[in-house]
Amino acid sequence: MTRRVMIVGASAAGLRCAARLRRLQPDWGITVLEKATTYSLAACGFPYVLSGDIDALDELRSTAWGAVRNRRFFEEVKAVEVLEGHRVLSIDPKAQTLEAEGPDGVVCLGWDELVLATGASPVSLPGQPVHPRVRSFHVKEDVTSLKKGLIDGDIGHVAVIGAGLVGIELAEAFRSMWGAEVTLMEAVRHPLPQLLDDDAGALVRSVLESEGVMVRCGAAMERIEVDDTGVTVFCSEGDPVRADMAVVAAGVKPNVELAKSAGVALGKTGAIAVDGRLATSVPHIWAAGDCIEVRHVVSGEPVHCPLGSLANRQGRVLAGVLAGREERFMNVAGAMAVKVFDLSVAAAGCSLAEALRQGFNAEAVWMTTDDRAHYWPESEDIHIQLIFERETSCLLGVQAVGRGQVVEAVDVAVQLLLHGVSVERLEGIEHCYAPPFAPALAPLAVAAFVARNHMEGVRCMSPLATVAGHRVLDVRLAAEQKARPWRWGESLHIPMEELRSRLAELDNAGPWFVVCERGTRSAEAVRWLGEQGLDARYLGGGMIWRCNALGDRE
Amino acid sequence: MTRRVMIVGASAAGLRCAARLRRLQPDWGITVLEKATTYSLAACGFPYVLSGDIDALDELRSTAWGAVRNRRFFEEVKAVEVLEGHRVLSIDPKAQTLEAEGPDGVVCLGWDELVLATGASPVSLPGQPVHPRVRSFHVKEDVTSLKKGLIDGDIGHVAVIGAGLVGIELAEAFRSMWGAEVTLMEAVRHPLPQLLDDDAGALVRSVLESEGVMVRCGAAMERIEVDDTGVTVFCSEGDPVRADMAVVAAGVKPNVELAKSAGVALGKTGAIAVDGRLATSVPHIWAAGDCIEVRHVVSGEPVHCPLGSLANRQGRVLAGVLAGREERFMNVAGAMAVKVFDLSVAAAGCSLAEALRQGFNAEAVWMTTDDRAHYWPESEDIHIQLIFERETSCLLGVQAVGRGQVVEAVDVAVQLLLHGVSVERLEGIEHCYAPPFAPALAPLAVAAFVARNHMEGVRCMSPLATVAGHRVLDVRLAAEQKARPWRWGESLHIPMEELRSRLAELDNAGPWFVVCERGTRSAEAVRWLGEQGLDARYLGGGMIWRCNALGDRE
Repeated sequence: MTRRVMIVGASAAGLRCAARLRRLQPDWGITVLEKATTYSLAACGFPYVLSGDIDALDELRSTAWGAVRNRRFFEEVKAVEVLEGHRVLSIDPKAQTLEAEGPDGVVCLGWDELVLATGASPVSLPGQPVHPRVRSFHVKEDVTSLKKGLIDGDIGHVAVIGAGLVGIELAEAFRSMWGAEVTLMEAVRHPLPQLLDDDAGALVRSVLESEGVMVRCGAAMERIEVDDTGVTVFCSEGDPVRADMAVVAAGVKPNVELAKSAGVALGKTGAIAVDGRLATSVPHIWAAGDCIEVRHVVSGEPVHCPLGSLANRQGRVLAGVLAGREERFMNVAGAMAVKVFDLSVAAAGCSLAEALRQGFNAEAVWMTTDDRAHYWPESEDIHIQLIFERETSCLLGVQAVGRGQVVEAVDVAVQLLLHGVSVERLEGIEHCYAPPFAPALAPLAVAAFVARNHMEGVRCMSPLATVAGHRVLDVRLAAEQKARPWRWGESLHIPMEELRSRLAELDNAGPWFVVCERGTRSAEAVRWLGEQGLDARYLGGGMIWRCNALGDRE
Repeated sequence: MTRRVMIVGASAAGLRCAARLRRLQPDWGITVLEKATTYSLAACGFPYVLSGDIDALDELRSTAWGAVRNRRFFEEVKAVEVLEGHRVLSIDPKAQTLEAEGPDGVVCLGWDELVLATGASPVSLPGQPVHPRVRSFHVKEDVTSLKKGLIDGDIGHVAVIGAGLVGIELAEAFRSMWGAEVTLMEAVRHPLPQLLDDDAGALVRSVLESEGVMVRCGAAMERIEVDDTGVTVFCSEGDPVRADMAVVAAGVKPNVELAKSAGVALGKTGAIAVDGRLATSVPHIWAAGDCIEVRHVVSGEPVHCPLGSLANRQGRVLAGVLAGREERFMNVAGAMAVKVFDLSVAAAGCSLAEALRQGFNAEAVWMTTDDRAHYWPESEDIHIQLIFERETSCLLGVQAVGRGQVVEAVDVAVQLLLHGVSVERLEGIEHCYAPPFAPALAPLAVAAFVARNHMEGVRCMSPLATVAGHRVLDVRLAAEQKARPWRWGESLHIPMEELRSRLAELDNAGPWFVVCERGTRSAEAVRWLGEQGLDARYLGGGMIWRCNALGDRE
């Protein structure tokens, strides 16, 4: 039995669904309705078109062999009809029809199965005026207009509102290639609050600042005033910021108006609720991509997770489901990554803050290690934060930041999060080892050692911890202390090599806070001091994390 | 109750065990016996000391903070006694004693628990003379002697026997920095036969050859003759090879003499048999590292897998077991990686050849894709081979080769192999997506799509397949055909864009063999041609894999 399938929206989810469904069902009627005339654009590449890393917008809608994915491409190569320039006005779920306005007026089309792949739109903040000097960064016109402004020299200073994934990528794009002054504002107290806790977030902030981006964290945008020569951004904290342009990157909201008008139920997050088959509450209406909510594997809660990787997979799975297969879109770990100048940042699962909000008795540990054999010349430091639950020893989340193999570690952790593994299981992970690629013990495994030790009493403290009430014991070599001194009060120096013989110099009048370069020696010291009856804990991630994170601050 | 633990061998497994056991059991007597006086060397770094990537051998026994791991270091920092220069002569398992010969004569020492971490030694081939011009590459003297020969100009041409991990790394070391002439001989018909099937192996061979290494595959070494000016290597095939030196890198065998003399049972592979706790057949005798065999998670068979990453984990686990914890060393997927000039190579699980030998009804597919968003300027091709069982759809192995993010993909696959996942599950893997790091669909997921399609009749053929009996249909654009022509007979050219309208040009007089750049379009073409009633299959991995693999050969 052939079916007529209508798909609303020609982006990742919709087109991926259409193309695969055609392969699975050669005889079905498959039509994609799209209001724009340029589509199938990989919008994740927009910041890199702005920066100049990618030459032309059209590269974002080209195949690997250089064919442009336009109406003709979909017709000839994919055998899928795209009605471009068609805006869907209404859906009649009973009659199984829809009305769309196209270049030739309004048409009424019948369907057997309807797929909503309507995507998401940028959030407008209260106090955000509608004006050419105040933009979102979501559609191709945003890219071309901002790039023109930069080329023409009209944009010398830009205020970016929101230090999430897009805001961060934008700040780099404006700064790295064009040398624009950038003020990056974030209501939360550190960048990338959806991905990171403040310890890892502070590492990102430092890199942004070292590259000349002015970062204002904990500063919520209150209103933007526009005049003939620029914008003034007023914040909850600090002086107003004067700039030529403001770009608001405060996240996106799902496009659900059509769904609502068709009686499709929304979920807790305000996005379209679907089951594992991507079916909505209305029979024969399905949804995929940035307009739906999915379930988080750690929290079990619905989340709105508008990521291109998920949209592509959803489109593919939905094609399988429509074709009658037993396919399901599974819960997600929320894996994300972002490049911040030469820093790689990745995270999956819950942050510590989020895990605590979800009611987990969550704890975290921090560690710094080499991403490859430490003697390999190109080895780089990698900073990893693990989040876990003490009672169950269950892994809840991971965050990684560094110049080396960061994303790789989180990609491995994603598989473990999806399998619900424990910290113990993480200790035993196998990996491909060769000095140019990895250390003999995988960084993630070492992070698990740190977590287990922590649960056994070798207490790992945040790299940003205040040490009030502690005496600081620095177990590094003299040269290390000199190169990266402890600058938050007094400290006692006893190199690890001498610690066992100089125990008498330590009393138990109050807790010791032990520090070293990366946390390895200090953890070992804390264990031993504990055996000697001393109260001690150590600086997680070591002085490298703390100093990288704080930069010149504090 | 305190125990006396003796550990024989001060390499990764032994020292890792000693150091952790000290942390877990502060009061136990822990002694490591080591015949050498320089130890704790990361031998995996030897090739890079030879090449000059790493300056000095001592870097291989230094900590990340620059401390040299010698007797004093283990005593002061790790509180572990190392009896260096002590060769263990015999073990009395009943009396729980051992005899060792040290600088001061023979001593007899008692133990409660004994750990054998005796490592492995290079295999000597029949016909391999004992002579300074014929070396293994296993101990530090091999490195220093060969490096001296290169520096002094005594080694202009070297014959490397065996193209396994070490042989490959050696060939690069001799060639890249020193410009030596290198002839690399391998009895099997392609390099890295433990890791790769011939399709991926041919990619490695091509890179070696393009860097000037003379590769002789399928040439077993028969004997080496030495004279005053050099060596002559006689092979089962081809002319004898004349060189200044021969280095035999034909693998290692476990050091089991002590174990045997103590009545410890060996396994099928000839290495020491242990259970998940790393206990041997003799009570209170344990073993870890390159002297033991482990169980392969895919085949279920014991394997000898002498890898530094496993030795380190075994040492750690054994310390936990000895300390009374419920720890286990789990089955392995045999993950391995090697750098071959600018190529990264990684594999895990079974090769197709090995899976067939194990009795699996195994099949393979091949694919080429981008390691990052294809429009990202630094994106590189990655070639992936998946091995799976058709009946169960179970993943059996993965091989990956390329200049980009190769090891990462295999590290993810390792976790899935260890969890015994199906190809379907692999299709749904989540990953960290951002254009600088990954494509929207993970390369491994795309490889799983290829496998599923193959099982559904979209037949994927080896990149090295002969096309005798097929007509070749090339669905690439004209420019692609010109840049990388099909050079194995006739071919019909119909670009994918025109295929649907030019169906009449194809008859069903015999099977079609469809080719494109990477296998994507040709797979789509095969599916569609099948629907039209034509018999067709396609070139897995595309022309890129085939041409990269064959180089100028054939």
